[in-house]
Amino acid sequence: MANTFGQLFRITTWGESHGGGVGVVVDGCPPKLKLTEADIQPDLDRRRPGQSKIVTPRKESDTVQILSGTFEGQTLGTPISMWVKNEDIRPEAYSEMATKFRPSHADYTYIAKYGIRNWQGGGRTSARETIGRVAAGAIAKKILRERFGVEVLSYVKQVQRIEAEVDYQTVKVKDIESNIVRCPDAKAADKMIRLIEKMRKAGDSVGGIVEGVARNVPAGWGEPVFDRLEADLAKAMLSLPASKGFDIGSGFDSILLTGTQHNDLFRMKGGKVRTLTNRSGGIQGGISNGESIYFRVAFKPVATVMHEQDTVDSQYRNTTLKGRGRHDPCVLPRAVPMVEAMTALVLVDHALRQKAQCG
Amino acid sequence: MANTFGQLFRITTWGESHGGGVGVVVDGCPPKLKLTEADIQPDLDRRRPGQSKIVTPRKESDTVQILSGTFEGQTLGTPISMWVKNEDIRPEAYSEMATKFRPSHADYTYIAKYGIRNWQGGGRTSARETIGRVAAGAIAKKILRERFGVEVLSYVKQVQRIEAEVDYQTVKVKDIESNIVRCPDAKAADKMIRLIEKMRKAGDSVGGIVEGVARNVPAGWGEPVFDRLEADLAKAMLSLPASKGFDIGSGFDSILLTGTQHNDLFRMKGGKVRTLTNRSGGIQGGISNGESIYFRVAFKPVATVMHEQDTVDSQYRNTTLKGRGRHDPCVLPRAVPMVEAMTALVLVDHALRQKAQCG
Amino acid sequence: MANTFGQLFRITTWGESHGGGVGVVVDGCPPKLKLTEADIQPDLDRRRPGQSKIVTPRKESDTVQILSGTFEGQTLGTPISMWVKNEDIRPEAYSEMATKFRPSHADYTYIAKYGIRNWQGGGRTSARETIGRVAAGAIAKKILRERFGVEVLSYVKQVQRIEAEVDYQTVKVKDIESNIVRCPDAKAADKMIRLIEKMRKAGDSVGGIVEGVARNVPAGWGEPVFDRLEADLAKAMLSLPASKGFDIGSGFDSILLTGTQHNDLFRMKGGKVRTLTNRSGGIQGGISNGESIYFRVAFKPVATVMHEQDTVDSQYRNTTLKGRGRHDPCVLPRAVPMVEAMTALVLVDHALRQKAQCG
Amino acid sequence: MANTFGQLFRITTWGESHGGGVGVVVDGCPPKLKLTEADIQPDLDRRRPGQSKIVTPRKESDTVQILSGTFEGQTLGTPISMWVKNEDIRPEAYSEMATKFRPSHADYTYIAKYGIRNWQGGGRTSARETIGRVAAGAIAKKILRERFGVEVLSYVKQVQRIEAEVDYQTVKVKDIESNIVRCPDAKAADKMIRLIEKMRKAGDSVGGIVEGVARNVPAGWGEPVFDRLEADLAKAMLSLPASKGFDIGSGFDSILLTGTQHNDLFRMKGGKVRTLTNRSGGIQGGISNGESIYFRVAFKPVATVMHEQDTVDSQYRNTTLKGRGRHDPCVLPRAVPMVEAMTALVLVDHALRQKAQCG
Repeated sequence: MANTFGQLFRITTWGESHGGGVGVVVDGCPPKLKLTEADIQPDLDRRRPGQSKIVTPRKESDTVQILSGTFEGQTLGTPISMWVKNEDIRPEAYSEMATKFRPSHADYTYIAKYGIRNWQGGGRTSARETIGRVAAGAIAKKILRERFGVEVLSYVKQVQRIEAEVDYQTVKVKDIESNIVRCPDAKAADKMIRLIEKMRKAGDSVGGIVEGVARNVPAGWGEPVFDRLEADLAKAMLSLPASKGFDIGSGFDSILLTGTQHNDLFRMKGGKVRTLTNRSGGIQGGISNGESIYFRVAFKPVATVMHEQDTVDSQYRNTTLKGRGRHDPCVLPRAVPMVEAMTALVLVDHALRQKAQCG
Repeated sequence: MANTFGQLFRITTWGESHGGGVGVVVDGCPPKLKLTEADIQPDLDRRRPGQSKIVTPRKESDTVQILSGTFEGQTLGTPISMWVKNEDIRPEAYSEMATKFRPSHADYTYIAKYGIRNWQGGGRTSARETIGRVAAGAIAKKILRERFGVEVLSYVKQVQRIEAEVDYQTVKVKDIESNIVRCPDAKAADKMIRLIEKMRKAGDSVGGIVEGVARNVPAGWGEPVFDRLEADLAKAMLSLPASKGFDIGSGFDSILLTGTQHNDLFRMKGGKVRTLTNRSGGIQGGISNGESIYFRVAFKPVATVMHEQDTVDSQYRNTTLKGRGRHDPCVLPRAVPMVEAMTALVLVDHALRQKAQCG
Repeated sequence: MANTFGQLFRITTWGESHGGGVGVVVDGCPPKLKLTEADIQPDLDRRRPGQSKIVTPRKESDTVQILSGTFEGQTLGTPISMWVKNEDIRPEAYSEMATKFRPSHADYTYIAKYGIRNWQGGGRTSARETIGRVAAGAIAKKILRERFGVEVLSYVKQVQRIEAEVDYQTVKVKDIESNIVRCPDAKAADKMIRLIEKMRKAGDSVGGIVEGVARNVPAGWGEPVFDRLEADLAKAMLSLPASKGFDIGSGFDSILLTGTQHNDLFRMKGGKVRTLTNRSGGIQGGISNGESIYFRVAFKPVATVMHEQDTVDSQYRNTTLKGRGRHDPCVLPRAVPMVEAMTALVLVDHALRQKAQCG
Repeated sequence: MANTFGQLFRITTWGESHGGGVGVVVDGCPPKLKLTEADIQPDLDRRRPGQSKIVTPRKESDTVQILSGTFEGQTLGTPISMWVKNEDIRPEAYSEMATKFRPSHADYTYIAKYGIRNWQGGGRTSARETIGRVAAGAIAKKILRERFGVEVLSYVKQVQRIEAEVDYQTVKVKDIESNIVRCPDAKAADKMIRLIEKMRKAGDSVGGIVEGVARNVPAGWGEPVFDRLEADLAKAMLSLPASKGFDIGSGFDSILLTGTQHNDLFRMKGGKVRTLTNRSGGIQGGISNGESIYFRVAFKPVATVMHEQDTVDSQYRNTTLKGRGRHDPCVLPRAVPMVEAMTALVLVDHALRQKAQCG
């Protein structure tokens, strides 16, 4: 099950950094959804390396091809197979990786688990794996938008100590996309970009926080107990490369308030049950309550740096390793479409589950 | 799938606060494990209401009965069904709940989803549901201990602003259990207990952080991509009632460091690949690296307070509701066995998956 | 997953012949279905030993108790836990089974797999396990009837060489239940009963065929490829104790015709697409076509006989074993409710899946 | 879950008859298995149309490409993605199919379910879908052979009324492959080939029985209750296009014997527990007992015939349809590798499950 996500809207990703490519099979998509590559490519372009000066410069067009599951521009209800070829294949650039474990990467743990690894470009651990997620997520976002009126978006909320001011209830996609760091607070964005550029030049990297939002989710999606909406979101986010934490609504700060202060009081408003505050983050008891869902994901600084660092080689001897060539000074701008994709995948899955049991 | 957790070591919980009881079916347990109720009851006692002056006073013995899956004191490999009767059933104490939605509880969302709810004691949303998890977790802990030499424990790390100093590498269970708040830092524990007592008297509640630890996990457990060990832990923890956040290793604080500062450098030590620091929290690329796993879970202050609060009733009219009778000023002492149980369930599942694919 | 069946309407059974009882947890049941024990008990009574002179005389009332998932006579959408206590516990009657492997039973294979078994009454291999299935199936049948207008029934079609004439399109439950062998052809039923009685007296057993039918299934249920309706039915039936074969529609006899002879021609009839014949058995390409579904299940003669037979003991020495006490000369009358239960479970599951993806 | 098969060794197939191709993703394959396209292609060639004069003449090379999951000729433990391009695309040859439902095909049921279908060459219902299964099955067979010493094979046992004499215990692959109908009884094979040729010329089709065998399966594979080995095999076989029935061991004929006659008596032989007969078909209580597994699958005559037949069109009007161009007079020779593939997939899955729980 390792490479499959979702219960009813299920995606299975495959592929390594170097090899025939990367891809995804989407199973359970409702039929008769209008769908072509043009619905998928824009999100892949937002995820793509080389899109701006502050991300890794790997040169790939990441052009997606739909191999199955559509007919005359509509989904069939059968599996949608999508494929992106690998282009910028330079195994020689990574040759030292064949024999040395990169610190804070998965080289060593893959050997511990499988006894073998494709060391070229990180193999399956490469962020290229997320291409399949983003492609599938683009379909999920379309279903949410067209069939349920739900909007999913995310943005960079914080880079190291630079925090943006953003209202998750009203922020617009065009403001997010108005700069290369994908932070809708223009002032903070400027500072963030400068910091990331500095890191790039220093051969170092920096982390931060992406905030994810889903607006107009109807009350009643989610499950009690194990498959709570926030639990599935947490899993989705912690499955992204470099993520280290997740909190929802009031999150870690909830502990500073007492129960009386923290509770979201119910009031009728426009004929609907609403809450006066939204510390719950749009979810109560695992089920959406009709308020906006919002949460944060912490991404550590990317492990690949251009400095010599102590490590161990595959003969289990101490050695050093210095990153070379391309590095990604900050994963956050490219993490934005990943967070959106995973959010949409979780929500569509629960939308279908709700129809099945209670529809 | 809503009420089932795990892929190979699978638990299915059932039951409402008021009714025939609560229970769990454990499927996939290895055969020939010594097991009787005496292995389960101690963890249930740690989870039980009424165990001390700082938790909810509901009076239940929570006595577990194993109905199947064992024979002459050993597991058979067949499903283990465990059952705890409900005893302290006082539906009248909750009668107002029949017609009013408690703020920041799941009363409203259950109605939005199912169109019906058992309002007595919160029904399925009651923390009594976690009895099944803790019972199953006791088995998982035993398997980890006896078959893999892995130790799982957790403790209260913070209550509101009172933070304990604890070394996750060396902390002992007896220090955790030496006080009623389950915080191994005696000084902090005293302050925490005083704060919680104050809250109880004030009819209010307070949240905090539980830290979870797994020691001696061999390198190689976990999966890349979706079922990363940290992703499954995140889901497990966010599925616990009142949890609002999860982070692992350096977690949210990872964003304050650069990549160069943050990386865990590898060194050989005692013939083993070790890391000089453990910001990864024992997991790299979703797979354990042999270091201790440690993570934090934020629990909000419990929603039930003894104060009158605005809310809405089931006729969708504004009203107020005042908590009565029993309330739990702080969920943390009882959350400790829950965190341990969910940690153990995740780890056993991955231990079995590792055997299946790579064993 | 071994003890769980279904994707969206999921049942998990547990329990051994001797021990705390047997039971089932049903997860995914739609909310607001009227449900009490009175909906379940009649099918359990049809499955029960001792119900007539031609079935095994074990004395159990098999009284079901619903422990969770309902409130004021309606389902909540939460797991429904059902439990039947074991009553007629006579381990001494089976003591020889502790050390000898019964021929054509699962005693040896359980040891080969688990290294341990509960030898009392067959443990988990006992037909008592099917109590949970029949109880869950009663709920599934009710959902099909009340929410989808689908009728599920089955009957004994053949005992050894005695074949009944039955029209699956029109046969009525009251005719099936009009005799103890559950064969709606009264003449054949008489012969069957006489044969079974003869077998009982001879301490021997006899097998036969149960035919299963689902009428008024709408076109469009089922899945292409792996989860074809007939594939799920086949699995369901072959999971029943003592079953050895399954075929659907024209089944094994289909091979006697050419394609031209075998094809079901489409014609419009009453505004609906209908087929002139129904060799497809109501399913085409894995999906229901609106015609009645009908299939056959072969049950071998029960392995427990009252004769001395060669076998091997748990010390792996040749020996002999003679059945004693109670034996079931023919499983077929009791298999009828089992076949209905499994049919209903498959159909409800696909009904919910259809709603999820295409609803 | 519709397009995924297996629990631990999981395959997901995708693709339509006309479009970008067909393929499969295999998840859960053990690492360090030697694997290249040369291991896969031979079974695809046995499945391929146009391989002999008695099968459908569609012209496709069905050349498989491994896109991921291997490195330097060995499996990585990551998903193995395999792809076969569609070549012989002649949508015009099928244009009538756009508006008419072919009798006993899935055209109508797809519309009933999805409201849309790819009518070109049958779309997803095309037997081309089985390419993915056969490719994955080739890997499964290799694992069984190399890691467990298990041999899987199958052959044509019967075509219409022509029945072959074959000893499942000793039959050799070279005898199966010695003729184009894949029947190891040379005399019967001749008659079968003549009959199929006659059918081809007559524009008609004929069905029959494929027998599947697994030899040297160790005792202890399989699960009790739902995931019995025979239940999973039954599902696997009934998921193949045109299959109508399955029975195992003594199968439907078991009903002609009494229990005393039918039981397989245990005897020690060469230090092993063996049975004197094998009516159980190598499985008892859902678990392998160390004897050879053998079973039969009935395949109906293929629905596409070159005769005019009554049907209905997509405007729901009565009409007629005459098959044109290519037709497959008998699916059996090509079903042989499909049966082997599905058998191997079931067995590998259970082998891994056995390791997980009881290893």
